[in-house]
Amino acid sequence: MALSREALIEAVSAQMPDKRWKHTLGVMETSVKLAERYGGDPVRAETAAILHDVAKYWPVERMKEIIEANGLSAELLSYDKQLWHAEVGAFVAGDEYGITDPEVLDAIRYHTSGRENMGLLEKIVCLADYIEPGRDFPGVDHIRKLSKASLEEGLLAGFDSTISLLLQKRQIVFPLTVLARNDLVRILEDKI
Amino acid sequence: MALSREALIEAVSAQMPDKRWKHTLGVMETSVKLAERYGGDPVRAETAAILHDVAKYWPVERMKEIIEANGLSAELLSYDKQLWHAEVGAFVAGDEYGITDPEVLDAIRYHTSGRENMGLLEKIVCLADYIEPGRDFPGVDHIRKLSKASLEEGLLAGFDSTISLLLQKRQIVFPLTVLARNDLVRILEDKI
Repeated sequence: MALSREALIEAVSAQMPDKRWKHTLGVMETSVKLAERYGGDPVRAETAAILHDVAKYWPVERMKEIIEANGLSAELLSYDKQLWHAEVGAFVAGDEYGITDPEVLDAIRYHTSGRENMGLLEKIVCLADYIEPGRDFPGVDHIRKLSKASLEEGLLAGFDSTISLLLQKRQIVFPLTVLARNDLVRILEDKI
Repeated sequence: MALSREALIEAVSAQMPDKRWKHTLGVMETSVKLAERYGGDPVRAETAAILHDVAKYWPVERMKEIIEANGLSAELLSYDKQLWHAEVGAFVAGDEYGITDPEVLDAIRYHTSGRENMGLLEKIVCLADYIEPGRDFPGVDHIRKLSKASLEEGLLAGFDSTISLLLQKRQIVFPLTVLARNDLVRILEDKI
């Protein structure tokens, strides 16, 4: 059975440092706002936001075990550990917290990487993760501005900032993020 | 039977404007230099360079027909037409010009996109295409400088400049190019 909102908040906040929980509160607030702005369900958006980083501070070995034991994306293991918590978080949301809504689970699963054909809740939580009030990185205000006019424009700018930063830092770019931004480029082109 | 170097040059140069042939001459010269510097075969590198843009000015419909009729990468057709000439060029090099050397054919096939696990000739022709003396784009001198010390460093900088430009221009990034640069990042990390 799914927990109440309050019980969920209590359980999830206990699994991360105060600073990260503050970030989660920001993602919750921003997800609700974006859902209201773009026709999503604020309650489901907030549920996904509460849980999006549930596994962020879990030991790497525990995440790896869950990915392997449950047949989750094995490809993920050859990429940066920062990506693992999203897939593990979606699993845990279902397994431990009784979440069954597939769109909420996908919003948790793809909140870091994005993917092609993202659903509305996925876009909302992913973008909220970029622009919640506590975020402070070069270009974040530009992304916030775009996000007021278009969910897709905001998200494209977010993904592009991630890819640019990874190029600059000589780090691996997760291919799914490139597919996600290509997909948004095509969607936005068709809208013109 | 394969044509002589002179006959090949005559046949290929007839298929493109003078300006593009001048670019090909630059890629030939630079491919030979890079082969000498990095232990490749200058003759095979030059052959691939002569042919790398053979289909560049072919009508789009003709390229599409060849890709479809010969079961070449169908995925390519959903990406930018600028990428098609490389795959078509490799096919034509074999079919019309009697090239059978698989490394020369792959150097033609992947000279624009790159790919994971690039062979020596592939890296040479791909990098030469970035830095031949006629090229003039922001950052080319930095790539030229890196290319004097490391084939992989030069090529990584080349791919990263392409990806950055595509992000800036809001264009589709070909996923294979991201896999190619990720692969180089890993190779260079292991070398340290």
